[in-house]
Formats: sequence, C-alpha cells, structure tokens
Amino acid sequence: MRISADENIPLLTSFFSEFGPIRQFTGRSVNRDDLLETDVLLVRSVTRVDENLLAGTPVKFVGTATIGTDHIDLEYLKRAGIGFASAPGCNAQAVVDYVLSALSVLVDARDQRFADLVVGIVGVGNVGACLRRRLEEMGVKVLAVDPFKTEAEVGELTTLDEVLTADVVTLHTPLTTEGDHPTWHLINAERLAQMKPDACLINTCRGPVVDNQALKSHLAALSEFEAILDVWENEPELDLELMQRCLIATPHIAGYSLDGKMNGTEIIYRAVCEFLGLPIRRKLGQFLPEPGVKRVNFTDQVPVHQALRTAIRAAYEVRVDDGMMRTAMRRASSRKAAFDQLRRDYPLRRDIPTMRVGVPAKCQDLHDVLAAAGFDVRTK
Amino acid sequence: MRISADENIPLLTSFFSEFGPIRQFTGRSVNRDDLLETDVLLVRSVTRVDENLLAGTPVKFVGTATIGTDHIDLEYLKRAGIGFASAPGCNAQAVVDYVLSALSVLVDARDQRFADLVVGIVGVGNVGACLRRRLEEMGVKVLAVDPFKTEAEVGELTTLDEVLTADVVTLHTPLTTEGDHPTWHLINAERLAQMKPDACLINTCRGPVVDNQALKSHLAALSEFEAILDVWENEPELDLELMQRCLIATPHIAGYSLDGKMNGTEIIYRAVCEFLGLPIRRKLGQFLPEPGVKRVNFTDQVPVHQALRTAIRAAYEVRVDDGMMRTAMRRASSRKAAFDQLRRDYPLRRDIPTMRVGVPAKCQDLHDVLAAAGFDVRTK
Ligand SMILES: NC(=O)c1ccc[n+]([C@@H]2O[C@H](COP(=O)([O-])OP(=O)(O)OC[C@H]3O[C@@H](n4cnc5c(N)ncnc54)[C@H](O)[C@@H]3O)[C@@H](O)[C@H]2O)c1
Ligand SMILES: NC(=O)c1ccc[n+]([C@@H]2O[C@H](COP(=O)([O-])OP(=O)(O)OC[C@H]3O[C@@H](n4cnc5c(N)ncnc54)[C@H](O)[C@@H]3O)[C@@H](O)[C@H]2O)c1
Repeated sequence: MRISADENIPLLTSFFSEFGPIRQFTGRSVNRDDLLETDVLLVRSVTRVDENLLAGTPVKFVGTATIGTDHIDLEYLKRAGIGFASAPGCNAQAVVDYVLSALSVLVDARDQRFADLVVGIVGVGNVGACLRRRLEEMGVKVLAVDPFKTEAEVGELTTLDEVLTADVVTLHTPLTTEGDHPTWHLINAERLAQMKPDACLINTCRGPVVDNQALKSHLAALSEFEAILDVWENEPELDLELMQRCLIATPHIAGYSLDGKMNGTEIIYRAVCEFLGLPIRRKLGQFLPEPGVKRVNFTDQVPVHQALRTAIRAAYEVRVDDGMMRTAMRRASSRKAAFDQLRRDYPLRRDIPTMRVGVPAKCQDLHDVLAAAGFDVRTK
Repeated sequence: MRISADENIPLLTSFFSEFGPIRQFTGRSVNRDDLLETDVLLVRSVTRVDENLLAGTPVKFVGTATIGTDHIDLEYLKRAGIGFASAPGCNAQAVVDYVLSALSVLVDARDQRFADLVVGIVGVGNVGACLRRRLEEMGVKVLAVDPFKTEAEVGELTTLDEVLTADVVTLHTPLTTEGDHPTWHLINAERLAQMKPDACLINTCRGPVVDNQALKSHLAALSEFEAILDVWENEPELDLELMQRCLIATPHIAGYSLDGKMNGTEIIYRAVCEFLGLPIRRKLGQFLPEPGVKRVNFTDQVPVHQALRTAIRAAYEVRVDDGMMRTAMRRASSRKAAFDQLRRDYPLRRDIPTMRVGVPAKCQDLHDVLAAAGFDVRTK
C-alpha cells in the first residue's frame, strides 16, 4: 500500500506507518507527477483534489483530515470510482468548549449562573448537537432550529423566530447561498431586531452567516447587546470597529484544539482501514500527550457555579485568545497577515474531556454538572 | 477574665472561649453600661472606642480585629493605661491576591507575560512589601517608593517620579492629608501625565489617594491607559462613568478574604494572651475550613505563564467581582445601597496560599514561579 500524505497531518506516521513507507509532501506543492506511485492520498484543506491532480494516477482512496470538503471535487471522485473520507465532527468538542468558555465569561460579566440562561441553537449538526446535549445536562434551557433535521434525530426543534427570543443565540450552520434555507446573512438587521435588547449573539460557524455591518449598527444602538465572534465577514480583513465592540473576538480558532486535529487523523485512519478491509490496530489514546492542566480538585466548600467556571476556564480560557487577537490587530500593519499568523502560531490547546476533576463522593450535583460539561469527573 | 466582643468577629468563641464566657454585642449598639463588668473589649471598625465608652469601666485591654484604628481614640487609651492591639497586615495577602489576579487579566488582555512587566509600588508597608516580594520572586521588575521606610527595612527604594515610569503603578499607602508626604490626591492630573500612555494604575488603598476626576479625564483622553480600582472617591457614591471605563472595578473588597478576617482574630487573640501572660494555645489552622478549590495539578506540558494564570484565577478570579459590581450598579436605584450590599454579601473567598498546586519534580521553573506567587506547591 503506497501512501502519499501532507506532512502537516498530525500523528501521520503514528497511525499510518503500518501500511509501509509514507511519501510526504507540503500541502500546496503536490502535483500529478508526485502521485504516479500512490494508492492512498491523505490531504488537508490546502490541497485541491480534482481530475487535474488524479487523472492517470493509481490513487484509489482520498482522505482529508478536515471537516470541510470544499477543496475536494467529490463529483469527480465518484465518477472515477475513487474512495473518499473526510472527518466530520472531528473538532466539534473544541467548538463546544469555546462556547462554554464564552458563556462562562458572559454569565460572570452579568452576575448570572448557567442555569439562568435560555440558549438558542441554530443548526443541530455535529457541533450544535454536542452543545445541546451538554447544555441541557448542565440545566440550561435550549431552543433549537434546524430545517434539515428531524426531532427523532436531534431532539425537540422549534422555529427560528422562537430561537431568536433566547438570551443567547449561537450559530452552528454551514454557509449556504441556495435552496429553501440559505444561511448567508441569516442573521440580518431584521432578525437582530427580533432578539432581546440584552441578548448575546455567538458566531463560530462561518462569518457571512451574520450581516456584520448590520450587527455593528445594532451593537452601536444597543449598549447591552453583546456579540462573541470567532468568524468574520471578509476574513481575514475583518472590521476592526466591530471587533472592538465585541465582548469576545477571536481569529477563527474555535475548533483549533490538538484533540480536534488528531481526531481528524484517527477518523481517516479508520476509513482507510475499512477501505482496505484491514483491522483497526491503532487508537488515538495511544499517541496523545498529557494535557498541561491535568486535574482540579474541589471540596464540598465550593459553590457549583464557581466549580463550573473554574474548571471550564482552567481547561480553556477564551479571553486569552481574545487578548491575543486584539493586541495583534492593534499592532498590525496588515490585518490579513496578523490574522493568518494568529492562526498559524495558535498555542496548543486541549479539549475539556482531557481534564480530570475531583469531587467529594457526596457532592452529586457538582459531579453531575461537571460531567455534563464534559469533564472526566472522579469521586474520592 | 470577663470579655465583651462584637458578635461579628469570626471565630470569636473558637479562640476566646478558654478565657470564660463571652458577652456578645452588635457593633454599633454597645454603650458604657454594657461594659461595667468587662476586662477585655474586642471590637471591629463599627464600634467607636473612646473615653465616652470606657470611662469608669474596668476595661484593661482593647483589641480590634481590623487593620485600621480610625475608630479608636489611641491617645485616650494611652492616657488611661488601657492595653491595645489591632491587626495590621491581617488581610495583606488578600490584597496581594487581588493585585496578582488583576495583573493576570491585564497581561492576558495585552498578550504579555508577568515577566514583561515593570511594576511600580507606592507604599511599602504590609501590603506593598508582601506584593514586592512575590512579584520579584516571580521575575517581575519592581520600582518602589516609600518616604517613611529605609532600604534596610524594605529593600531598594527610588523616587515617585521613577516609579511613575513603570508599566503598572499600584498604590498601597494610607490616606493622609498632613506632613511632608500627604497621600490625598497623590495621583493627580500632573502625575498621571508622567505615566506611560499605555500604563495601568491600580488603586486598592484608599479612594482619595487618586484624583478620580483627573483619572476620568485621563482615561477619556488616552484609549490605551487602563485603571483597576477597588477604592473610590466619595465611596459608596462612586462615579459611574469612571467605573465603566475601568478595566476592573470592584467595591472595596480587595482585602475581603475569609483568611484575612480570621487572621485578624488570631492576631488579637495572641495579643490578649500576651497581655494576660498566658500561653498561646490556639492556632488559626485548627479552625479553617477547607478551601473550595483544593488543588490543581499541572504536567510538564503546561507553559509556565499558562500555569500561573490558571492557578491564580482558580484561587481568585477578580473579574467575577467586577461583574457583580457592574451588574449591581447598572440595576441599582441607590449606588450607596448597592455598594454596601455588595460588601455585606461578599462571597466567601480564600487566600492563594490555601490552594495546593501539583507540579512534576523536574519542572523547577514552574515550581519556583508558583511558589513565588504564594501557592502551596507540591512535587510528585
Ligand atoms: N470556528 C471554527 O473553528 C469551526 C470549527 C468547526 C466547525 N466550524 C463551522 O461550524 C459549522 C457547524 O459545524 P458542524 O460540524 O456542526 O457542521 P454540520 O454539517 O455537522 O452541521 C450543520 C447543521 O446546520 C444545519 N443547517 C443548515 N442550514 C440551516 C439553516 N438555514 N438553519 C438552521 N440549520 C441549518 C444542517 O442541517 C446541519 O445539521 C460549520 O459551518 C463549520 O464550518 C467552525
Ligand atoms: N481595599 C481593601 O480592601 C484594603 C485591604 C487592606 C488594606 N487596604 C489599604 O491599603 C493601604 C495599605 O495597607 P497596609 O496594611 O500595607 O498599610 P501599612 O500602614 O502597613 O503601609 C502603608 C505604607 O505606606 C507608606 N506611605 C505613607 N505615605 C506615603 C507616601 N506619601 N508615599 C509612599 N508611601 C507612603 C507608609 O510609610 C507605609 O509603609 C491602606 O490604605 C489600607 O487601608 C485596603
């Protein structure tokens, strides 16, 4: 089995070396001639995979260690009978962590508790469904909308109008411009006007799902309205005035955890095994380093809401990323270069479930809320 | 030994019951007639102690479980030969924790590290000296001024002009209006103008040490200048516009930890023992509850600066207090009532040294920085 792979796929050799030597390339540089002796091609989003690249090569399977497939000509692969796998949902947990950290900041700023919130979720796919489950188990009331899902698949659904009445509205759709439910500028001036004057809008999906100019005007008019944005229209040339008025502003890194990236490799490894009819011999757990923050122990003296925010922000403090973004943008001569560099040099981050939390056996509430948030809870 | 004491002194009976029954009163209500059979009087700052209260009573010793003595007529006690003790420095650690938590927020917002900072300390008394020691051991450069201290007592000293060149200037003086170095409006428009345009001023000592109107104008003129205020001119009727422009705003709670209050009781207990020539039989450690956040374990995967901010804010997150203050002030019909209520209902807080931090034996840097910050560091 001859494999060619982007050298930036994490844990590449750990997972794939059993199949023989791996030919490595840098994402953008690979061309057809490089693949004349390749059976399996593994890429990231920087490699355009189409007829140009593959025609006349022996490639029988393509895997992309990413959730997106915009860089892949899926029609062509189908036509040519080439197997394919991507890694949907591989970084859903990381995005959920981002939203939990952001919500913890919001409730602290407003002297609230998680359980005081009604959260509206737009799009109940990999991210939205995981977020919904965690929030509901944490005691947060959720309103959700997804015109392409059934209640049997994802639980209770309602209308967008209803979702917009929530205290927090968080977006988890793809960016689409066609069909009955396009998401381009789904949140526009009119929809913002439907929201509570002190609501908070969170966007971690795709920038243009929100009309950024309408949001900027809305924020200017309503001093209590808050926005938390990880994705931006015209990224990386984002609107700096909008950024300044955001409660939290980050450079499209919500999903950027080490675990998220590594999950992507494991998912395509499993797909390759299946394609080749081979057993799955390697598991991600074998290769993961220890998290930097390994464990937090609470006693029965801790209020549940304090334990929750302490644990969430010990695992992931979104305001550190916010500080990096604002500082870089203030200093930058080029927004584009600064934005790209922030993403490229993003510090290593681990998912919430990698962190252990110790709680006394008698504190059932504490146990349940921390487990709902995703922590590896141990009683003692 | 007949003791009368303010019922709100924490651990009153735990410490003092060995001397016999304690007569308890509410702070403001006590009068001379109540003290006709009292040898030792223990008060907090709400009780005015003077000739009016004590003349003709058998009181031989007065203890106040507070750092301040404004409520005590020290002249009279001296004249009357009545012993006296207060609890200087009892909550110095809590104020230091406040400053460390605030600095961690500042460096995060600016994408810096503690070691990038030069911190200017004005007033090297109980708080200033403790802060200085911690910061220097953490690798922060400190500039300090105190016209009433010698370098032999408190380490290197410089001029106020020099201190004002620091990145952060933090105030730890009493409020004085007389003598060669009065502190009333010590930081005025002129002194603010000496500071860097992107400096940060922290005031946790007494509100009027800073000319609040001059600070407000300065903040309005310089968008990069930051202020962190725990104390305010005209407290509790603070200036809301100034509050809104502060990076962190809190209601005079920097010293409000459980440990700080309890230290005060221990200090006067020891003073009473000494006055009576009795051995010290009780220690604060016997009576302290466990902290809510008991321990945080790091691995060798954690960057030192991440461990530092995670540990500091797991022990004390000053932005929670900031959120409570802003929310209360936004909703309040009376600023005074809101300010007083925030202080009265202040949640239980523990000092940094009550929290254990686990680090791998080989991580000496991590160990040293966390120990410098005051944590109870354990290696494993
Ligand atoms: N910021 C980041 O770093 C980051 C990381 C991961 C994912 N994302 C983005 O987050 C979004 C969600 O990711 P996912 O993995 O959950 O995708 P997904 O495809 O699993 O889920 C998207 C869901 O949105 C629904 N949807 C489509 N149009 C809708 C509409 N008009 N109204 C309501 N729902 C609609 C779909 O039916 C689907 O259930 C994607 O846009 C993805 O690119 C961003
Ligand atoms: N915010 C809170 O909750 C809180 C808690 C504790 C203490 N405090 C306040 O913090 C301040 C410091 O407390 P402390 O216990 O360290 O007091 P302290 O008396 O031990 O120290 C004060 C120091 O300031 C010095 N000083 C006086 N005038 C000065 C001047 N003009 N310039 C420079 N230094 C000068 C003194 O020499 C002394 O060393 C006090 O005002 C106290 O009331 C506030």
